Amino acid sequence: MSEHQIPDQMTAVVLDTYAGVEGLRIERRPVPRPAENQVLVKIAAAPINPSDLSFLEGLYAFHEPPPVVPGFEASGTVVATGGGTMGRTLDGRRVACISRGGRDGTWAEYMVASTSSALPLDDAVSLEQGAMSVVNPLTAIALLSIASEGGHKTVVHTAAASALGQMLNRLGSNEGVQIINVVRRDEQVALLQEQGATIVLNSSDADFDRQLRDVCHQHKVRLAFDAVAGRMTMQLLEAMPKRSKVTVYGGLSQEPVLANPGHLIFQGKSVDGFWLTTWLAQKDSDQRMRIWRRAQKLMLTDLKSEVRARYPLQDAQKAVADYQGHMTGGKVLLVTGE
Amino acid sequence: MSEHQIPDQMTAVVLDTYAGVEGLRIERRPVPRPAENQVLVKIAAAPINPSDLSFLEGLYAFHEPPPVVPGFEASGTVVATGGGTMGRTLDGRRVACISRGGRDGTWAEYMVASTSSALPLDDAVSLEQGAMSVVNPLTAIALLSIASEGGHKTVVHTAAASALGQMLNRLGSNEGVQIINVVRRDEQVALLQEQGATIVLNSSDADFDRQLRDVCHQHKVRLAFDAVAGRMTMQLLEAMPKRSKVTVYGGLSQEPVLANPGHLIFQGKSVDGFWLTTWLAQKDSDQRMRIWRRAQKLMLTDLKSEVRARYPLQDAQKAVADYQGHMTGGKVLLVTGE
Repeated sequence: MSEHQIPDQMTAVVLDTYAGVEGLRIERRPVPRPAENQVLVKIAAAPINPSDLSFLEGLYAFHEPPPVVPGFEASGTVVATGGGTMGRTLDGRRVACISRGGRDGTWAEYMVASTSSALPLDDAVSLEQGAMSVVNPLTAIALLSIASEGGHKTVVHTAAASALGQMLNRLGSNEGVQIINVVRRDEQVALLQEQGATIVLNSSDADFDRQLRDVCHQHKVRLAFDAVAGRMTMQLLEAMPKRSKVTVYGGLSQEPVLANPGHLIFQGKSVDGFWLTTWLAQKDSDQRMRIWRRAQKLMLTDLKSEVRARYPLQDAQKAVADYQGHMTGGKVLLVTGE
Repeated sequence: MSEHQIPDQMTAVVLDTYAGVEGLRIERRPVPRPAENQVLVKIAAAPINPSDLSFLEGLYAFHEPPPVVPGFEASGTVVATGGGTMGRTLDGRRVACISRGGRDGTWAEYMVASTSSALPLDDAVSLEQGAMSVVNPLTAIALLSIASEGGHKTVVHTAAASALGQMLNRLGSNEGVQIINVVRRDEQVALLQEQGATIVLNSSDADFDRQLRDVCHQHKVRLAFDAVAGRMTMQLLEAMPKRSKVTVYGGLSQEPVLANPGHLIFQGKSVDGFWLTTWLAQKDSDQRMRIWRRAQKLMLTDLKSEVRARYPLQDAQKAVADYQGHMTGGKVLLVTGE
């Protein structure tokens, strides 16, 4: 066991009702105790991701009965284990930890994680970067692997100024997959172009549909990763040539996916979805460990996230509101002061 | 060459503008002349199908510059050929003929068809039944073959009181594929039950969503064939268990397909489309001929269509309006008096 003195009580962010930021409050709670094959992680930092916003609204896959601690990923140090070989191996180590539903999440001073949900950080990866080393980095690796396995040399990506979008451009250019970036504001066009992205379209442009169609036909693009849903999915299907697919992985528009029946029927187009949890579950544990190690190696370069603001747990409401108001241009972190 | 005297002029239904039934008029036109590998068919009867209604509205895959003769299928007799071995084989024969876009359709006294689009009728098949022996019968065979190849023992079918829906129930019960029939009126429930269908749901029922969900989970249904689109597609995705697919083959609601992003992302569900033309194009000519012969054998039983009304070509507007007002309960035919 490590030397850390574990207090009885901790500060935690708690979601009382699925009402978005309004449903959050700060609470003193007992520090949870790890059972066998679980570890207790003293949290250092946890990001606010788009998936957290969905969770707060009750729109995510997990819908625990409240009150519940939100937060899907974090970094920290393993300070206690509930026994088992893996737990002892992890004891005292710096880890990224993820919440998988069915129990409290990462927006607290301490969190219990199963040993398979606590992933050792490389020495070169700071706790701050480590806090953001699962959701976006592994999604970037997954999407590019899906593109490569499908033989796609060019893909469309919407909401492309996101942290994930920036990773996709960097990682894609090293893997020979070109990204057609779709954003919705001019400053996002500028941001991505500064970072070296060559194709960036603004969906607010009057002739966006024509631009998208031209570039999709020119590059024979048959795959789009869509974080927006709503009408955007229909625009993507319209723009791409026959036998194209839109893979929806987010619903930022908060609208149902729309599709023109004619595109599905006569043009052989289709719509499916991507969820990192499903993708990882299809890998065996060796494959998952290789993916994780590769992501760690790239955390200082292709898979690095910029941080725009840091808030203590007590200011979680302010932090979430800040992130909601400005979702691109750097991540917002909840930090414990550790 | 056959003995038939071919006149110079014929009566044809012509679509002037893509404005539905309002865009139709009757015209005297020159009888077309077949080129090599084409035949001239003296039309006996042609049905009005849902796909014709889509065509009249400009919503079909083919969008010829008007004026154009509508109509996708018909029956008739080959009265002239433009040469070529196949043409000579067909001369004088009773055929089903189909229009494939790029030229005038079947709602006329004569039509030019490529030799591969004129399919000999079995002696036992009347010209009236023969007029309806391509679109619905081959679609029924295709959908059940897709279900069987995917290992689906039970599938959902919407707009299930249609001629196609009735065929699917009969053919499915002989092939070991059970149909969950979704209709929208009580009399359609009664019609299908009289014909022996065991599972018929009325989408107008207040608890339709629960009924559909229960039956889909009970039978582990992961495939739905949807002719409606719009909100129906979303209801189907909602009702079926994880990793289900809705295959859209029609857009009777005239609304865009809707889908809940969460179903695509977290539940691995998907939406694609079916078009008979694409399905047949993926078969080689031997396979297509075997499918055609099988359909002909079943035309007096599983693939038989009921006829509700017959109109002369001159009354095409009235015929289309009649069909639009009452799309189930028997087909509406345009007949030439031959």
